[in-house]
Amino acid sequence: MSQTEFSERGDKKAVEDGDLLMPKFDADGLIAAVVTDIATGDVLMVGYMNAEALQRTIDTGEAWYWSRSRQSFWKKGETSGQIQSVHEILTDCDQDALVLKVSVAGNGATCHVGYRSCFYRKIVAPDTGPLRLEKVEAERVYDPQDVYGKV
Amino acid sequence: MSQTEFSERGDKKAVEDGDLLMPKFDADGLIAAVVTDIATGDVLMVGYMNAEALQRTIDTGEAWYWSRSRQSFWKKGETSGQIQSVHEILTDCDQDALVLKVSVAGNGATCHVGYRSCFYRKIVAPDTGPLRLEKVEAERVYDPQDVYGKV
Repeated sequence: MSQTEFSERGDKKAVEDGDLLMPKFDADGLIAAVVTDIATGDVLMVGYMNAEALQRTIDTGEAWYWSRSRQSFWKKGETSGQIQSVHEILTDCDQDALVLKVSVAGNGATCHVGYRSCFYRKIVAPDTGPLRLEKVEAERVYDPQDVYGKV
Repeated sequence: MSQTEFSERGDKKAVEDGDLLMPKFDADGLIAAVVTDIATGDVLMVGYMNAEALQRTIDTGEAWYWSRSRQSFWKKGETSGQIQSVHEILTDCDQDALVLKVSVAGNGATCHVGYRSCFYRKIVAPDTGPLRLEKVEAERVYDPQDVYGKV
């Protein structure tokens, strides 16, 4: 088993220059985790972890999150099979965000809507009218009904 | 000038399948923005935008944020010259996160500590003792004192 011991939050120098993990969780006890595809580098999703979810992720090598909508632990892929194997976890200068480099099992998709990445649309600004979205992924990878049933 | 009109938040289908931008700002009025390098795909930083910062970003093509620590607008690069030209903005399935694909002006670095990316350290789990961090960027790109003065 890996160690999952976080260090107490230190001063600015310790946080920015140090070699101890002292993550900053927000008022809700959460830290943002940006998930990228280890092969392509594409951003697949943004999730949130509390301390326990981060510990489980480091201990097991598979990504766990805290679901803000359901207020419960959420092992990505538990239902869908889209388990995330975590190859590397980076943290930023102030240690209040994470990047997880993962490979995705199952059908290889990440988004519950059926796309490979949750970021399947880009913003476009037309000459008139409201801001619009345009697909950057042409096709769904899978039909969510096949995985989650009728929703 | 581009349009910067957001649409009212719709139902699940409108949010996930629709072609209108209806961003979800959190209880503090913020949305997370993951910034990636348009050339390499690397994650450079995670910032937060309120509606006005997102509007300014879309209008000007240069990234604006809301600084949670200073509680003020923050045009990235205003002091450092590390202006972010925004080539594309993606949003996710539930429209509560953004990905900005940018190129960085000035010295080309993003992190105020001197590194190219704010994510210059990875988590390592030793056999004993607390979780540690290890540099993934060998060298600083610049000396922060040259840019920000004595801090």
